[in-house]
Amino acid sequence: MLRVGLLGAGRIGQVHAVNIAGHDRSALVAVADVNTEASGKLAAQFGAEVRTSEEILADSGIDAVLVATSTDTHSDLIEAATAAGKAVLCEKPVDLSLARAKACKVKADASSVPVMIGFNRRFDPNFATLRAALAAGEIGRAELLSVTSFDPSPPPLSYIRVSGGLFRDMMIHDFDMAGFIMGDAPVRVHAAGSSIVDPAIGAAGDVDTAVVTLTYGDGRLAVIRNSRRAVYGYDQRLELLGSGGLLSAANMLENTVSKATAQGVVSAKPLFFFLERYMPAYAAEWSAFVAAVLDGGEVPVTLDDGIRALALAEAATQSARTGRPVVPEI
Amino acid sequence: MLRVGLLGAGRIGQVHAVNIAGHDRSALVAVADVNTEASGKLAAQFGAEVRTSEEILADSGIDAVLVATSTDTHSDLIEAATAAGKAVLCEKPVDLSLARAKACKVKADASSVPVMIGFNRRFDPNFATLRAALAAGEIGRAELLSVTSFDPSPPPLSYIRVSGGLFRDMMIHDFDMAGFIMGDAPVRVHAAGSSIVDPAIGAAGDVDTAVVTLTYGDGRLAVIRNSRRAVYGYDQRLELLGSGGLLSAANMLENTVSKATAQGVVSAKPLFFFLERYMPAYAAEWSAFVAAVLDGGEVPVTLDDGIRALALAEAATQSARTGRPVVPEI
Amino acid sequence: MLRVGLLGAGRIGQVHAVNIAGHDRSALVAVADVNTEASGKLAAQFGAEVRTSEEILADSGIDAVLVATSTDTHSDLIEAATAAGKAVLCEKPVDLSLARAKACKVKADASSVPVMIGFNRRFDPNFATLRAALAAGEIGRAELLSVTSFDPSPPPLSYIRVSGGLFRDMMIHDFDMAGFIMGDAPVRVHAAGSSIVDPAIGAAGDVDTAVVTLTYGDGRLAVIRNSRRAVYGYDQRLELLGSGGLLSAANMLENTVSKATAQGVVSAKPLFFFLERYMPAYAAEWSAFVAAVLDGGEVPVTLDDGIRALALAEAATQSARTGRPVVPEI
Amino acid sequence: MLRVGLLGAGRIGQVHAVNIAGHDRSALVAVADVNTEASGKLAAQFGAEVRTSEEILADSGIDAVLVATSTDTHSDLIEAATAAGKAVLCEKPVDLSLARAKACKVKADASSVPVMIGFNRRFDPNFATLRAALAAGEIGRAELLSVTSFDPSPPPLSYIRVSGGLFRDMMIHDFDMAGFIMGDAPVRVHAAGSSIVDPAIGAAGDVDTAVVTLTYGDGRLAVIRNSRRAVYGYDQRLELLGSGGLLSAANMLENTVSKATAQGVVSAKPLFFFLERYMPAYAAEWSAFVAAVLDGGEVPVTLDDGIRALALAEAATQSARTGRPVVPEI
Repeated sequence: MLRVGLLGAGRIGQVHAVNIAGHDRSALVAVADVNTEASGKLAAQFGAEVRTSEEILADSGIDAVLVATSTDTHSDLIEAATAAGKAVLCEKPVDLSLARAKACKVKADASSVPVMIGFNRRFDPNFATLRAALAAGEIGRAELLSVTSFDPSPPPLSYIRVSGGLFRDMMIHDFDMAGFIMGDAPVRVHAAGSSIVDPAIGAAGDVDTAVVTLTYGDGRLAVIRNSRRAVYGYDQRLELLGSGGLLSAANMLENTVSKATAQGVVSAKPLFFFLERYMPAYAAEWSAFVAAVLDGGEVPVTLDDGIRALALAEAATQSARTGRPVVPEI
Repeated sequence: MLRVGLLGAGRIGQVHAVNIAGHDRSALVAVADVNTEASGKLAAQFGAEVRTSEEILADSGIDAVLVATSTDTHSDLIEAATAAGKAVLCEKPVDLSLARAKACKVKADASSVPVMIGFNRRFDPNFATLRAALAAGEIGRAELLSVTSFDPSPPPLSYIRVSGGLFRDMMIHDFDMAGFIMGDAPVRVHAAGSSIVDPAIGAAGDVDTAVVTLTYGDGRLAVIRNSRRAVYGYDQRLELLGSGGLLSAANMLENTVSKATAQGVVSAKPLFFFLERYMPAYAAEWSAFVAAVLDGGEVPVTLDDGIRALALAEAATQSARTGRPVVPEI
Repeated sequence: MLRVGLLGAGRIGQVHAVNIAGHDRSALVAVADVNTEASGKLAAQFGAEVRTSEEILADSGIDAVLVATSTDTHSDLIEAATAAGKAVLCEKPVDLSLARAKACKVKADASSVPVMIGFNRRFDPNFATLRAALAAGEIGRAELLSVTSFDPSPPPLSYIRVSGGLFRDMMIHDFDMAGFIMGDAPVRVHAAGSSIVDPAIGAAGDVDTAVVTLTYGDGRLAVIRNSRRAVYGYDQRLELLGSGGLLSAANMLENTVSKATAQGVVSAKPLFFFLERYMPAYAAEWSAFVAAVLDGGEVPVTLDDGIRALALAEAATQSARTGRPVVPEI
Repeated sequence: MLRVGLLGAGRIGQVHAVNIAGHDRSALVAVADVNTEASGKLAAQFGAEVRTSEEILADSGIDAVLVATSTDTHSDLIEAATAAGKAVLCEKPVDLSLARAKACKVKADASSVPVMIGFNRRFDPNFATLRAALAAGEIGRAELLSVTSFDPSPPPLSYIRVSGGLFRDMMIHDFDMAGFIMGDAPVRVHAAGSSIVDPAIGAAGDVDTAVVTLTYGDGRLAVIRNSRRAVYGYDQRLELLGSGGLLSAANMLENTVSKATAQGVVSAKPLFFFLERYMPAYAAEWSAFVAAVLDGGEVPVTLDDGIRALALAEAATQSARTGRPVVPEI
């Protein structure tokens, strides 16, 4: 049984709490949040205690922490937790600064505890099935990957300003997905971005629509499309062209009902946003972490994965500014 | 080269004219219609002559006739044409009277010329593919067939009154389709019908919505659903459950465009009606007839097929009236 | 908070236990099963007590029972539980005997406690969405309903023999679904059945493939297709043709991945069986029961609904034997 | 009635011959080809005469020519035909050289006859429907266009060597499609290419897989994906994300049959190649040309369109070589 402290009781912390408490090999022992009302409510619901992060890290009865706090605290908490000998599952990204993330890894490596980064989409049953089909040789060799990732609507400008920008905040998931599928890092990154959804996002120094092309050393290509606004919902798809065929992972829809009338045939929209779409992925992610920690295997998403995705995000940010392809620092 | 006289220059005659003239092994020589304006126009378009039916049947230079006249003339024209030694492709049905159709077959059999009945749906590429997959053993043994056949809107009451009723006029296609797929005739027919679309159709002694169940001697089942009104277009589908799987033939759509908005995802309707949906089937039907006549093979749809479908239509008509299953006269 | 005793710790009891314990307005207090190993394990998992049914019914601290025992005990337990003042959610069917089910209702009505029958499919999000669209007038008036319900494989013959037959055991769900959608009982039932999947099922006096036609007093029609074997999985679909269009609820698939190769395009199968397909439905069913009991509304599926479905099953059983339509006793 | 001379009796010339002869407002008068066996056969089939190009251009009884000869003759024939006062429908591309194409336009403009370039995909019913939906405001303002265009298999190396390269030979269709949908030319072109399908294509100085990003002056983006090999068939799709939704045009499939077995659900592949997929588009293209010439309207695809697509192809060719974005010469 893995005894777990949850750091962060916000929206995503609540999702993790359900999975921690509901898993038959883990127990939610304590919850910490600067917002004590949030931590109190969540702790009560699952019979856990309210504590501070420091108290959780100091408790020798706690085996692991789940870091679901704000991004700017991730590196510090990973360092503190590994120093305290706790296994860590930390929400993405490791940090908005590539240098800071690399420094964090140096410190974390000094301990022998597992650190996993929460790129939840790897655990989506559809994407995982696609990757398994590739691994099984079902379409031969990969040649051209396409990742589509559109949010239903942009976050507030206040969030945009501290987000690190679309490439570090949103597309970082897709950079990790590219690594997950292609099993390698690209040698060149080209980004084209625009603030066509909302000029205010451009005025804040960010883009809201972007196309990134990744070129791999062996000639494979990948293209990532991001938009902050798809009014029909959360559009999350993969396509992988290989020497022997094409694998596609389509959206999950709200339901399977269609209505045919004189005006056409209407069917359901994609599941609205990440909490709806990736609920099964979060549960599978937690299971994978528990299994890795308790059974001694390697965690399926490492700090290096987090750093690689961040390096691509930095390269894309730079490319979008200069208009020139960038060789990522990996 | 097959030299062809077309009897009937109405809507369906025009479709056949294109196929006759466009086929590289057949030539449209003459067109007959009591409406001489219609026959004149059609003949001019394809460089054919306007003649009477009698003239066409008497012309030793004509090898075959396509009968696309009104239903009440079919039996007489089949008899006259076969007596004159012309190969015949006759639109369905052979006749509205089963007895008359059987008598027609006796006379036609006295000649040695091929007679084919125009059950065009057998030549639809989708249905033909489904049947070929069954024949290839792809789903094992057939167990339960479902035929869906909905028209976009009811014909005028004036037509309903002389149509012979839904079972003889509309479902006769589906009875033939059942025979085409199942390769056998059922031993029992049960029909439930209703005039829920338009009570005036009921007042005219007909139904507009019907479910017919066919039971085969070896335990296989088939169900046919008909409606005179599907406001979204012509709904023409097959489903065949077998011991090893399910084969489905879906509708053909107006286009492949879909539109996702906040209101849902809208895609195209089925092709509107039989002229849109079955255009490729009519061309394939004509090719099959030409090949059978010129190359000496058997026609793929025989007078017996036409009689069998009519016998099922009669049984269904009777069953819908009495509420009891009927053993068809086959 | 609803304090609940669970009667029956088998496969379906385990599903209910998760929902009872996981709901924020209900608590799993006790579990009873003649198999005490099963009840012990389930009780331990959720911190409940192991008791006998009698002890549970005698405990004034328990508000409601969920009856998930074998079918032959349902009526007795409904009577005992209502006599003890416990609200009841009982798995379908009420009983295999229509007379017994009616007698049960008389006794249950003598108490004032809510009794709900577990027709879980009403709570499937797809079917519920279809019904809501009909209720909202989106396709005008209903005319022709089609219910498809195929199991992945037949149960053992030992089960078939005590099941009450396909119509009472399997199609009873579809009879209830027809009532759920059409909001009325049919005036005539015609069934055609066959044991084409496995002759041994026929030898045991049952059918494994069936088509049932329901005729409603106002001319609406419904057709239900059942097969005990669809090798590709659990096939659960609805189609409703109305005066203004067609509503369809398609299967839920294992995933959204497709693979296009030179051999065709392969996509995922339907979710395997009821535990996979209807998991969300069971949770929604429990929520509806909790809300009805705690908030005082009417339960959404009544004993009368259970009796009506059983009456249709009896009529269909008789029709399949005699070949003649039957007027159901409702 | 438009009297037409066909220049070129190869594969695509044969497609045009059917449409010219089958159109009720045009007649195929003469066919020219250096391969006189090919022109002879085609002329015989449609009752036309065999002539040389020179004879056709000199015949005052001929109103229009369709240029379906090899690419290197296009510019010369456009110039000669317009000088002779013949309306021209010329297959794409105008020329492999941008400078030559521009010079051709100068000469052609000196006449007053219509010149249309055969970008057949604009007339595909699916793509035309998508564009009409955008024009009707159904998804608000366009933001991000994605064009997918994969061939089933690479052409022979001998063809690759004289083709002008993937961007001028294959992607030129997609550059025109981008212009058709976006109604404007981009200000920047970035191309990433690879010869991952066949290194011999790379050795011949070309790529076989490419991703091109187009940036428009107002912030809109487009991405084009090309591959010379999709083993499942001709993959031709569009996706357009707009402020109010997403329009998608999917592939047309060989048939609508699907087969569900224990191994999954198999459906049909896309129509194999351009002759299968774009047959309706060629007919619609011809109709549009005939209408423009006879009724005096503007041709829907101009020489300028051909030049713009070629300019983008040149920019992409250069970008793929240097790795840097290129400002196209438009």
